[in-house]
Amino acid sequence: MLHTSPNTFGRSLRVITFGESHGTAVGLVIDGVKPGLPFDLTAIQQELDLRRPGQSDLVTSRSEKDLIQVLSGVFEEHTTGHPIAMVVFNENHQIGDYEAIKHIFRPGHADFTYDKKYGFRDYRGGGRASGRETLARVAAGAWAKQQLTAIGVAFKSFNREIAGIACKVIDWDFVQKNPLRVCDPGVFHAQRAAVEAAMDAKDSVGGISEIHICGLPVGLGDPVFSKLDAMLAYACMSIGGVKGVEFGAGFEAARMCGSQHNDAIANDSFCANNAGGILGGISNGDVVILRLAVKPTSSIGSRQKTIDWSGQEVEIEIQGRHDPCIAPRLLPVAEAMCALAIYDAWLTQSELMPETVSDISDYDWDSIEEILLKIWDETKK
Amino acid sequence: MLHTSPNTFGRSLRVITFGESHGTAVGLVIDGVKPGLPFDLTAIQQELDLRRPGQSDLVTSRSEKDLIQVLSGVFEEHTTGHPIAMVVFNENHQIGDYEAIKHIFRPGHADFTYDKKYGFRDYRGGGRASGRETLARVAAGAWAKQQLTAIGVAFKSFNREIAGIACKVIDWDFVQKNPLRVCDPGVFHAQRAAVEAAMDAKDSVGGISEIHICGLPVGLGDPVFSKLDAMLAYACMSIGGVKGVEFGAGFEAARMCGSQHNDAIANDSFCANNAGGILGGISNGDVVILRLAVKPTSSIGSRQKTIDWSGQEVEIEIQGRHDPCIAPRLLPVAEAMCALAIYDAWLTQSELMPETVSDISDYDWDSIEEILLKIWDETKK
Amino acid sequence: MLHTSPNTFGRSLRVITFGESHGTAVGLVIDGVKPGLPFDLTAIQQELDLRRPGQSDLVTSRSEKDLIQVLSGVFEEHTTGHPIAMVVFNENHQIGDYEAIKHIFRPGHADFTYDKKYGFRDYRGGGRASGRETLARVAAGAWAKQQLTAIGVAFKSFNREIAGIACKVIDWDFVQKNPLRVCDPGVFHAQRAAVEAAMDAKDSVGGISEIHICGLPVGLGDPVFSKLDAMLAYACMSIGGVKGVEFGAGFEAARMCGSQHNDAIANDSFCANNAGGILGGISNGDVVILRLAVKPTSSIGSRQKTIDWSGQEVEIEIQGRHDPCIAPRLLPVAEAMCALAIYDAWLTQSELMPETVSDISDYDWDSIEEILLKIWDETKK
Amino acid sequence: MLHTSPNTFGRSLRVITFGESHGTAVGLVIDGVKPGLPFDLTAIQQELDLRRPGQSDLVTSRSEKDLIQVLSGVFEEHTTGHPIAMVVFNENHQIGDYEAIKHIFRPGHADFTYDKKYGFRDYRGGGRASGRETLARVAAGAWAKQQLTAIGVAFKSFNREIAGIACKVIDWDFVQKNPLRVCDPGVFHAQRAAVEAAMDAKDSVGGISEIHICGLPVGLGDPVFSKLDAMLAYACMSIGGVKGVEFGAGFEAARMCGSQHNDAIANDSFCANNAGGILGGISNGDVVILRLAVKPTSSIGSRQKTIDWSGQEVEIEIQGRHDPCIAPRLLPVAEAMCALAIYDAWLTQSELMPETVSDISDYDWDSIEEILLKIWDETKK
Repeated sequence: MLHTSPNTFGRSLRVITFGESHGTAVGLVIDGVKPGLPFDLTAIQQELDLRRPGQSDLVTSRSEKDLIQVLSGVFEEHTTGHPIAMVVFNENHQIGDYEAIKHIFRPGHADFTYDKKYGFRDYRGGGRASGRETLARVAAGAWAKQQLTAIGVAFKSFNREIAGIACKVIDWDFVQKNPLRVCDPGVFHAQRAAVEAAMDAKDSVGGISEIHICGLPVGLGDPVFSKLDAMLAYACMSIGGVKGVEFGAGFEAARMCGSQHNDAIANDSFCANNAGGILGGISNGDVVILRLAVKPTSSIGSRQKTIDWSGQEVEIEIQGRHDPCIAPRLLPVAEAMCALAIYDAWLTQSELMPETVSDISDYDWDSIEEILLKIWDETKK
Repeated sequence: MLHTSPNTFGRSLRVITFGESHGTAVGLVIDGVKPGLPFDLTAIQQELDLRRPGQSDLVTSRSEKDLIQVLSGVFEEHTTGHPIAMVVFNENHQIGDYEAIKHIFRPGHADFTYDKKYGFRDYRGGGRASGRETLARVAAGAWAKQQLTAIGVAFKSFNREIAGIACKVIDWDFVQKNPLRVCDPGVFHAQRAAVEAAMDAKDSVGGISEIHICGLPVGLGDPVFSKLDAMLAYACMSIGGVKGVEFGAGFEAARMCGSQHNDAIANDSFCANNAGGILGGISNGDVVILRLAVKPTSSIGSRQKTIDWSGQEVEIEIQGRHDPCIAPRLLPVAEAMCALAIYDAWLTQSELMPETVSDISDYDWDSIEEILLKIWDETKK
Repeated sequence: MLHTSPNTFGRSLRVITFGESHGTAVGLVIDGVKPGLPFDLTAIQQELDLRRPGQSDLVTSRSEKDLIQVLSGVFEEHTTGHPIAMVVFNENHQIGDYEAIKHIFRPGHADFTYDKKYGFRDYRGGGRASGRETLARVAAGAWAKQQLTAIGVAFKSFNREIAGIACKVIDWDFVQKNPLRVCDPGVFHAQRAAVEAAMDAKDSVGGISEIHICGLPVGLGDPVFSKLDAMLAYACMSIGGVKGVEFGAGFEAARMCGSQHNDAIANDSFCANNAGGILGGISNGDVVILRLAVKPTSSIGSRQKTIDWSGQEVEIEIQGRHDPCIAPRLLPVAEAMCALAIYDAWLTQSELMPETVSDISDYDWDSIEEILLKIWDETKK
Repeated sequence: MLHTSPNTFGRSLRVITFGESHGTAVGLVIDGVKPGLPFDLTAIQQELDLRRPGQSDLVTSRSEKDLIQVLSGVFEEHTTGHPIAMVVFNENHQIGDYEAIKHIFRPGHADFTYDKKYGFRDYRGGGRASGRETLARVAAGAWAKQQLTAIGVAFKSFNREIAGIACKVIDWDFVQKNPLRVCDPGVFHAQRAAVEAAMDAKDSVGGISEIHICGLPVGLGDPVFSKLDAMLAYACMSIGGVKGVEFGAGFEAARMCGSQHNDAIANDSFCANNAGGILGGISNGDVVILRLAVKPTSSIGSRQKTIDWSGQEVEIEIQGRHDPCIAPRLLPVAEAMCALAIYDAWLTQSELMPETVSDISDYDWDSIEEILLKIWDETKK
């Protein structure tokens, strides 16, 4: 069931985010926290740093340190069981950037819909609709990940496609070494060139992001409405710029026969993973795999047709600092949302969950890669 | 925010469904009902009849009248504002069909995950995991649709692809006339042949379903977590067999440039509809378009490898009555889930909604078709 | 946090009730059920029989068997983890009784407020506002009690006062033997005479009900908004006819000094129990004690001044079958609501709860009585 | 339905509070805010000042300015419709005060239950259990009151009893002029003397607080579980130190006959107000009246028996700055909680609410006083 609180995520673990792009601060409150857990602020800051602007020449140059501070809920470096409030004060306001477009609806943005819905809007950098809101998600997700790591759940994410150029192999190590967070060194340069070409043309490109969740025990997710895939889809579709989500074989499943698509079962494991690790809405012990369609950045410098507040048609060339492709900086946000959905599902039914959990260091990433690759190849042939 | 009640859908309008495939009854309770609305049971029965098994030679032959009765909440043919409970008593139990597979996990089904999660399961026809549960969704959705029709919102749904064979044109009239609910008379026979071939081979096929929601005013949906697309994705991914969802240009958006994908705005309308009618999580007044990846039916008669309760590897050939492709009977369920999500979003913020609404009879379906077709063509080229 | 679903009770265990006094049926759905629990329908029917009308000459003579049936969620006499739907079909409709007062607002009833709020109402026996709705609560509560008994929690309830005549001693055995469910044989006859006098005068009387919850471990309830006493108060105040609730020393606490009221602590137990078993909103291991102010039955036969739909002043003499005092039949409802609140609190934080629980057969009811009596005496002196 | 978020209040308007007594900050986030409303921070600060310590010689001398700042959700002095975050940074930490009692459970406090529930606690001034948390409630309530004032709803509160000494008359003007916020100048000196005597004896006293909510239209509150009185009871019982709540005639109703207690109806108004303005859980247009039993302050300087962490029996004399009676400073908190409950009920069903509302300046406080006094006298005779 979805809740009336549009700024809160989760059922047993609840995260409310607040704050605008160019307001005083962006922050969050986590409720439903178990008491006595170690609280590692440094690890949270590290995740924020992955999302932070200005990391390479392929992302926006807005300068924000994004230093997070804790206001409550932590005592002697442990959670107290009471709400954890965290906040980042905004520093690099450049409101002047936005004065010019105060009365104009930027195509692809929420300007039009916010204005029609609320009657007015905080036009400074998108206000609440800004991607800056996601730093609060990343902070909460980083905390959720700490808890999940302790029970053997690991997240891996990378970009599968950039600007329509698909990766052919998954090289886990390479992912963290390139600014596009793609997984195939063989096509990286073509992808990079496509992004740079878009920058030169004052344009932008999209991509396909992929998230793997390893080490989930069997039994997460509820049948009927709160299926694990439904919850992950909801979590990821709530990220600005995501236009589609698929699990396992995904849209390609629609083109398979039942005898092809059904994962045969042997020794409690599934021979292929077309299901993407979820059967009947419940995790089956396999790797959960999902892919997100990420649209090209809406803010582009080239001339576009639009209208202003009065309905008058105008043209616009958006100034300011923007990512030519949001897929790289979207990955930590997507991981964070998945972590929140998974940890929430775990807490919601902790009594049904096994005592013994996986040891994260045991994962055979190479064999996982092999299986994943096979799926991908099949869906492409 | 998702709620802990895994069998309840909605925030302001809440629907709880109950019942198992071969138990006493399947039913639902709707809470959050406005008082004094006319209640049309016949229209609800008609929607149920669209979902009912046994409608053609291409669907399961289980014989159920699916007659629905009202237990509460209606007085003198109007809603009272109190919970509406409705129930369908099951008739065509064939428990014998399931005795043989009581201890075996059918591939592609929730048998394995239910057993691991709950320790045991009602194995009769999938119990709670059965598609039969969706009749309760259709009943609730039919009621929601009645309210939405009154405010000018219309639903159209059809299958875009069956067994990998894609429709090229949208012929609205044709959709209701063919048992596969596809939209292109030109490819229907090839699609039908593919389904029949699968039946002969004791196999099954999948498809891609598409839903159009017309007449939505600007302003439905909340930014941040309760975006309209996030809620629709959640609603549709909660339907068994759906493996992916996309909006507007969907996954194809990932391959477009910003200058291509951004819908230019003119005269308060959007020149293309790559966004699928939603900007920043809020409806923009355009047609909302979503597509669902429907996997091939899991129940197939051909021999499959699997395991039983004891972990022993066994082979299985599933007997009984099954749809060779669930996409046709999935459409009323998908429409119902979308109607519930939309009506719920409407009620959640009714004060922000306009008094004046569209007149449903005004829609120019032909011009809508033209635009939609263009999008589709583009995404396929 | 209170939820928008006005007919649903609970957070982790959620009960929705439906049905009207003279409609087709009254029923309920329980969601959030743990799988694999034994399900004892007979025990549920027994609790319903305690609430059922027609048990003595001091309650209404409406003849209802109140036979409950299960529609879903139970398989081979165990819970499946899926929603349990139960229903009682109404039998003894006497709609003629209500035709005469269709357009008149009965004083003390919800007629006036329902009509103003909803625009119209199901006037037959109060419709949804009828005490008959509480049978659904009792059924759900009976099930919750079964689970609580298994973990050592016991409920005792009785009437402390009837018609202003207070009990001086608590005789547990006597409670179940007298139709007023009072606890003092010494004053029972005076109380009975007062009720009979009210009946003769076509009038009614009120009472004070008391509930003891024994065997709760330390730690139930959340600080801040979801305090255990706040939840119990909410649960009990939602019963029609309850006008006040107090815990432990209750209103008398307002007249004590801190040095008197603070329960000294020795050997992990509290020397007195002025707190009523709850400190800072969390159970402290002591008996939880609450008292409810039950107003006199609103339906009385004597002549009353009121108005009709048109605002015209009229007089009314209510016909039909009514309890002269609702306190006796209210006890199972109050126990049910407390059981639902307690079991819900337990499930909400089951991981914080101890593995070892009390053995219900160990309770020393005599010494508990002694302590309770002392509190009562003090508050009366 | 109660929600799993123990730190969130409300359904349509949701307030989450965070922060500990001696932590970095105490704050809150309001979600479900309507856009475009004027936001008056000064009025919020004024309400906080009423709750602030150090206002007279009869309250604690802890020195806190309690200056509140806004972090988000307000743009150009209007609400944006997005979450309003507000925070007060703590100043007057005196952690040394609490070192001595770090391992000892103070009688009457949540120390024992927090420790048993959470395994440890932030012992500095009660941490999350401190009355300091209520400043966040007052800030949220002040904002809710601004909205309610605009629709004609007014709150009046005062203390009816202090230390067992009851007021006989209600002098509205006097309430704001005396530090105990009592309503009868004739008994104030006796009440003051009782408080001072308790201070001298290192002891404390309790009181009975009363809240009147005027100008509510007919129709607020839902039948069954979300009755308006159930919600107000929940709201007020969630305030630390409240041990009972009653509406209208309250516990005295239990001693009345139906013919006495039923409020006769004439000209759409109720001749007496024994019901306390609520019938069947729905406001009837009359003044809503509730009374709270406030226990004597738990922190007292005199010697008390208790135990420490190891279970060892010890004696304790609590040092530090404490209110001899919390009833005076509880009033703004109680008003705030009632305002939140009422505004939330309003928003939850705003479409059922009338367009035209009362004009707050029209209230005839004198005649209201007369009626109220009559009720009180009757209940005391």
